[in-house]
Amino acid sequence: MALIVQKYGGTSVGTIERIQAVADRVIETKKQGNQVVVVLSAMSGETDRLLSLAKALSHTPTPRELDVLLSTGEQVTIALLSMALEEKGYPAVSYTGGQVHIRTDNEHNKARIVDIEAARVHKKLNEGKIVVVAGFQGIDEDGNITTLGRGGSDTTAVAMAAALEADECRIYTDVDGVYTADPRIVQNAQRLPLITYEEMLEMASLGSKVLQIRSVEFARKYNVNLRVLSSFEDGPGTLITDEDENMEAALISGIAHNRDEAKLTIVGVPDMPGIASKILGPIADANIEVDMIVQNVGLDNSTDFTFTVNRIDYDKAFEILQKTAKSIDAKDVSGDNTIVKISAVGVGMRSHAGIANTMFKALADEGINIQMISTSEIKVSVVVAEKYLELGVRTLHTAFGLDKGSIVDAND
Amino acid sequence: MALIVQKYGGTSVGTIERIQAVADRVIETKKQGNQVVVVLSAMSGETDRLLSLAKALSHTPTPRELDVLLSTGEQVTIALLSMALEEKGYPAVSYTGGQVHIRTDNEHNKARIVDIEAARVHKKLNEGKIVVVAGFQGIDEDGNITTLGRGGSDTTAVAMAAALEADECRIYTDVDGVYTADPRIVQNAQRLPLITYEEMLEMASLGSKVLQIRSVEFARKYNVNLRVLSSFEDGPGTLITDEDENMEAALISGIAHNRDEAKLTIVGVPDMPGIASKILGPIADANIEVDMIVQNVGLDNSTDFTFTVNRIDYDKAFEILQKTAKSIDAKDVSGDNTIVKISAVGVGMRSHAGIANTMFKALADEGINIQMISTSEIKVSVVVAEKYLELGVRTLHTAFGLDKGSIVDAND
Repeated sequence: MALIVQKYGGTSVGTIERIQAVADRVIETKKQGNQVVVVLSAMSGETDRLLSLAKALSHTPTPRELDVLLSTGEQVTIALLSMALEEKGYPAVSYTGGQVHIRTDNEHNKARIVDIEAARVHKKLNEGKIVVVAGFQGIDEDGNITTLGRGGSDTTAVAMAAALEADECRIYTDVDGVYTADPRIVQNAQRLPLITYEEMLEMASLGSKVLQIRSVEFARKYNVNLRVLSSFEDGPGTLITDEDENMEAALISGIAHNRDEAKLTIVGVPDMPGIASKILGPIADANIEVDMIVQNVGLDNSTDFTFTVNRIDYDKAFEILQKTAKSIDAKDVSGDNTIVKISAVGVGMRSHAGIANTMFKALADEGINIQMISTSEIKVSVVVAEKYLELGVRTLHTAFGLDKGSIVDAND
Repeated sequence: MALIVQKYGGTSVGTIERIQAVADRVIETKKQGNQVVVVLSAMSGETDRLLSLAKALSHTPTPRELDVLLSTGEQVTIALLSMALEEKGYPAVSYTGGQVHIRTDNEHNKARIVDIEAARVHKKLNEGKIVVVAGFQGIDEDGNITTLGRGGSDTTAVAMAAALEADECRIYTDVDGVYTADPRIVQNAQRLPLITYEEMLEMASLGSKVLQIRSVEFARKYNVNLRVLSSFEDGPGTLITDEDENMEAALISGIAHNRDEAKLTIVGVPDMPGIASKILGPIADANIEVDMIVQNVGLDNSTDFTFTVNRIDYDKAFEILQKTAKSIDAKDVSGDNTIVKISAVGVGMRSHAGIANTMFKALADEGINIQMISTSEIKVSVVVAEKYLELGVRTLHTAFGLDKGSIVDAND
């Protein structure tokens, strides 16, 4: 008998009919002889409805009270699903975050899980019950209700799986797994049967929005087998797990892209110690996140300094940078918000040379100019003009042998 | 410094604007130097909305899960009011029933309060905070969420006042107090400045729907000063409290009426021991509540047995009674669902003879025929034809000296 944690998002429980469908899916898993714990989000739209009530009373609602308010959303869905399960003849019991002691720190609106009391859940599972838990919420050590921030239900599910030592944590979404590239761009993209935590983290940070990053970090930390599946159709999905021998075969797991970035360059900066912090300090002070950073020293002992920010912060960052340029005596500021980042991700590249070279050559063959390069242990990213997005992704997908037919799905 | 518990119902917190108005009223009480605890219902309509979601999933939703669902209604309003108070510069903290340990038995959907932990609330009050508590809900000893049933927020407020040893528990409603009679019928009806628990209980059981009966019982048991006031206008309302010397003056506090009753008679019943239970047993088995019961023994050693039920149960009761008549060999069954009950209520009648006589004479003078009579220590009730409702109430209101000008309001 396996212990399975399933998590369903707001769209999956958005109507009475969909809650019925979730109940059927839960019952199917139970019928296969598993113990089942279900973690739920609020009905889609509910969190926004509650937020608008709060905003009507205050521009900056008290964080503690906002959590009391927002946590009602999941409390509604856990009660409804439990009723649906009972109506179909399967004993179920719902728990709020507080009731199963999902202990968090006291950072309201963005709390982090500290501990989960597994005993009560195990007891109910052993009685044959399906346990339905509210995602996204917990309590601090004084018993105050906290929330984990948007998307936090994924994290609740993984933390619950870790605490219960579950065999698998299944996250049901509107896609049927993680793909080698965005299927809307690459027709030949394939669902990956397996992917490592590290790869998934890179994918997520590169804009692939299948899973919340924190939940993947949590899964890696506690070694939870995490599976992404579709709420709406059957299929094995993608298993996110520890690296194993089978994975060595593939150099690259996927080609990710991010079109939310913009590039800024400050030109002719006097090259001296501490200059980077003089440039990036005011950017950070304005709460603007910086992604890639590249610095080259030129012949005349001055340097060009380039970095990328989220596209919505472009105008603000440009303005700040112009002030900085004056104060540090730089020559000029330039920028481009029509760029994209394309990345090849794979744990395989650790042990194989030449990945970057393959990438650069494939792009060059198509006449695509590379504006910036950044590498990590399991990722090579390049910045190119936005117009090359589709061509670049498809070229790399083919170059790394990811097109359909090249991967054997161990789960099928 | 006094400690005041205030309770606002669903209509008073039904919109953002009304929540703002409640916040202003709470702040006013706080500014007068009081400690304030506020107990809230769900926004009007919310409980019905949640119930309809549950009913869409199950005709008989699991009682435990129904409580998890319905209790979110008050959790929303306590968060919103606390935000409104904080926005206006008054520190506030909200608590669900579980968070302040409103311990109940485990009778889901109609739980009874066992105990309240006052320490946490006192601590917050002593820190200068306004404490906002969810009405209608609690937790059982296993930590399951329970609800007290409809109208239970009044009971929460009184129980909270008892546990905190509050100076007064103020129930804000859509009327500005308890009247000597229904002002829609008696133009000269007056707001009572004071009324005893016993009188209020009789009034409530006679159809005066100002307060939930259980909350008055609770207030009497724990000697809580209970005040009914209007949410929408200022005024002293009516104080419900223990009998005191001042009250001796008034024989009768008010004239109540109830038009929700119907009368059934079984005629020519052989008079023998146990006959009453043979008649009423099947009625009780069908979950029909019986109010007044009158039995007369006739000359021929047979008896007529008359009782009243709620008007919506009339047809069902009539049918049952016809079967009973056959089985016990009674002559006939008759009934009337166009009757009303009119009652004179007052602790003063305990020590004064002749109340019933004054009542019967006044009605007789107007040609109103009395069909049934029932008396208690502080109440005389008569059943008359429905067409005499207004005339009967007005006649008694005048006969007992209750018309405007006859009572001095000690609070004004």
